[in-house]
Amino acid sequence: MKRLKIGLLGLGQVGSGVYSILKSKGANLARKNGTAFVLEKIAVKHSIKKRAVHPNRKQLTTNTRSLVRDPKIDVVVELIGGIHPAKELILSALRSGKDVITANKALLAEHGRQIFGEAKRLKRHLFFEASVGGGIPVIKVVREGLVANQIRSIYSIINGTSNYILTKMSEEHLDFKEALKLAQKKGYAEADPRLDIEGIDAAHKLTILASLVFGGWVNFKDIYVRGISSIRSEDISFAEEFGYTIKLLAVAKKTADGIEAHVQPTLLPKSHVLSNVRGSYNAVLMQGDEVGDILLYGRGAGSKPTGSAVVSDLVDLARSVDSDHSFAPNLKPLKVRNISSLLSRYYLRLHVVDRPGVLAKISEVLGRQKISISDVIQKERRLGSVVPLILLTHGTQEHSLRRAVHAIDRLAVLKEKAQVLRIEE
Amino acid sequence: MKRLKIGLLGLGQVGSGVYSILKSKGANLARKNGTAFVLEKIAVKHSIKKRAVHPNRKQLTTNTRSLVRDPKIDVVVELIGGIHPAKELILSALRSGKDVITANKALLAEHGRQIFGEAKRLKRHLFFEASVGGGIPVIKVVREGLVANQIRSIYSIINGTSNYILTKMSEEHLDFKEALKLAQKKGYAEADPRLDIEGIDAAHKLTILASLVFGGWVNFKDIYVRGISSIRSEDISFAEEFGYTIKLLAVAKKTADGIEAHVQPTLLPKSHVLSNVRGSYNAVLMQGDEVGDILLYGRGAGSKPTGSAVVSDLVDLARSVDSDHSFAPNLKPLKVRNISSLLSRYYLRLHVVDRPGVLAKISEVLGRQKISISDVIQKERRLGSVVPLILLTHGTQEHSLRRAVHAIDRLAVLKEKAQVLRIEE
Repeated sequence: MKRLKIGLLGLGQVGSGVYSILKSKGANLARKNGTAFVLEKIAVKHSIKKRAVHPNRKQLTTNTRSLVRDPKIDVVVELIGGIHPAKELILSALRSGKDVITANKALLAEHGRQIFGEAKRLKRHLFFEASVGGGIPVIKVVREGLVANQIRSIYSIINGTSNYILTKMSEEHLDFKEALKLAQKKGYAEADPRLDIEGIDAAHKLTILASLVFGGWVNFKDIYVRGISSIRSEDISFAEEFGYTIKLLAVAKKTADGIEAHVQPTLLPKSHVLSNVRGSYNAVLMQGDEVGDILLYGRGAGSKPTGSAVVSDLVDLARSVDSDHSFAPNLKPLKVRNISSLLSRYYLRLHVVDRPGVLAKISEVLGRQKISISDVIQKERRLGSVVPLILLTHGTQEHSLRRAVHAIDRLAVLKEKAQVLRIEE
Repeated sequence: MKRLKIGLLGLGQVGSGVYSILKSKGANLARKNGTAFVLEKIAVKHSIKKRAVHPNRKQLTTNTRSLVRDPKIDVVVELIGGIHPAKELILSALRSGKDVITANKALLAEHGRQIFGEAKRLKRHLFFEASVGGGIPVIKVVREGLVANQIRSIYSIINGTSNYILTKMSEEHLDFKEALKLAQKKGYAEADPRLDIEGIDAAHKLTILASLVFGGWVNFKDIYVRGISSIRSEDISFAEEFGYTIKLLAVAKKTADGIEAHVQPTLLPKSHVLSNVRGSYNAVLMQGDEVGDILLYGRGAGSKPTGSAVVSDLVDLARSVDSDHSFAPNLKPLKVRNISSLLSRYYLRLHVVDRPGVLAKISEVLGRQKISISDVIQKERRLGSVVPLILLTHGTQEHSLRRAVHAIDRLAVLKEKAQVLRIEE
């Protein structure tokens, strides 16, 4: 039987998942695929530490640099995350003639052109199913299952932490801080949750997905990113009154003027298929020119779901070791449209002093930018006190809206800066 | 460049989809995959006929038997459907050394052991992505993306026609016949719709899917099948009052006592992810032991979606032509549990003469089988007239329920036979 000798970098959450799946199912996978999966070496920070899994001492090493150059190893599985030293280790592994499997979305998003380029040049395989959507085989589906399609658009919920927080805010009427604490308690959010709640993790994944389906490389820095930390429970309640939920939506579309790509909290109609994605689940909705709408839904994180994706890459690699097909995305840079030129409807939440003529004044400012109002809610009216005034606009370009909001924010009746959220239909 | 020479059997809806995708994207697919896809011959019933696509005369033949033995052809794509002559043609193609791609769920479900067995014996590839879920790459996902998982259960909506009819009945308050007519007008239902509305098509697909994921062959005849033709709009309204939708659900589970597999109209809570699958869409919800719940959703039929799945098989074949890995499911027969031993809650709709003591009498009959009632709706009460009485039961075995319903149907107050539907939570 063929043997695929694996060097594992990292034995944290995902690494432990991979380890335990190989331990419990390795023999069965070997029998079905004609390849034995041999965990040759595992690089860890501390060789003695309490862990969920217990490899034997001889498998463990703290020397990552020698692991990635070890001639006994065929494939390096990088699960340490972050940019450094993951980048140097992956490049070193590729240059030592090894194939690489990684779950590192930050690295692929920010240095993908260099890393994919190097893999291509060296004719090594670089697999990354676990980098987007955790256990959901979204990379396989877009690359193989939908190979006959040009993907026109991606609408996705690809950060489980943010979706968990927004779900708790909506269903249990928590405020943002309470929901974040709950997420941390449940292990869904890191001690430093910024990558998740500021939308950066979702933008990393969107970079990879968009670069894969639009036939060129999307620069991570060109993606407009805004997280969920400014969302208040009142925004969620007002959105609900209008028939919407608020989701951290990662969107990419191919248009005649370039790629549209952004991550931001967005109002979605309750009847939209993504509105029902609750808790820490992820979902990716794509439109293919042949297949139409297709949705993939599942666990976007966690030890075993993500481990399941890494192991599927190992099996794919075992099947394609002899092929020189490197499956690299096209690395030619794509033009991403500036967010200011995009057309959308908007939700505005203003805290104003309730005084006659306030709505007229605000409508006038919007009117100057040719923005018309489709819906209004004005609550708890008490003359002279500060009350929320909620407006939904008709479609307008972002730059017109920004100009109007800038003017509105300077009105004397405004008691705090306006909240502005995009609406998708 | 390598060339994959294709013989196409059938140029109907799916065949035309494949033809037009290869025509518009063949060059691009060839460039990306290093293989030219050459449509060598197309077998049709009538060589002169009005069609959506226009192959040149030389490609067309009416001689299916010589096509499947033509030494110039590498792969036969069977898209004529039905059992005969599709079966004989596929076997002949395999025996002539060709790989085969098919969308024929009826054939694979009813004769899969023979056909997969023959492909395995002859070391030929047999691909069938389009046979389940149309454009949704469900076969690829379970076989490759979820390779690290044991699938524990499948809950699916895999007949678009039935789902379209039930959606129209629910949303536009049509009765079954009106909704069926509408489906026929829209092209979602055949002139003879029995395969779809009687649940047989869904059971065919469930046979294939269950056989693939449970590690042995499920006999199509062992699957309990009931279609939607007995569903009335009143059933849909009553179900809604209790917070349920009615869906034609195809379910398969692995249990300690064998496989559970059935297709039947089923009450599902409105909050269930499958309740929101509307119109002609399909969805497959699976539970893997590592990945947890995963859902795939998309177009389950149609020329281009199904064509997209066939073309993805062609690309996969081009990549694996040199491998002797035939990917056949395990053909050892699996024990399927008799439906009568399964436990479930039930919905009962009785038309009874409204008379004092009716509910007591019916409860007594149910009580004799140790079935207890969880919910009751009794409407339009007018002493002496016939009124609907709706009961939801607690969990009970199907055979107890059948015995109770048999007794209830013979009560003098019953004006027509009871409607019995399973409830899934």
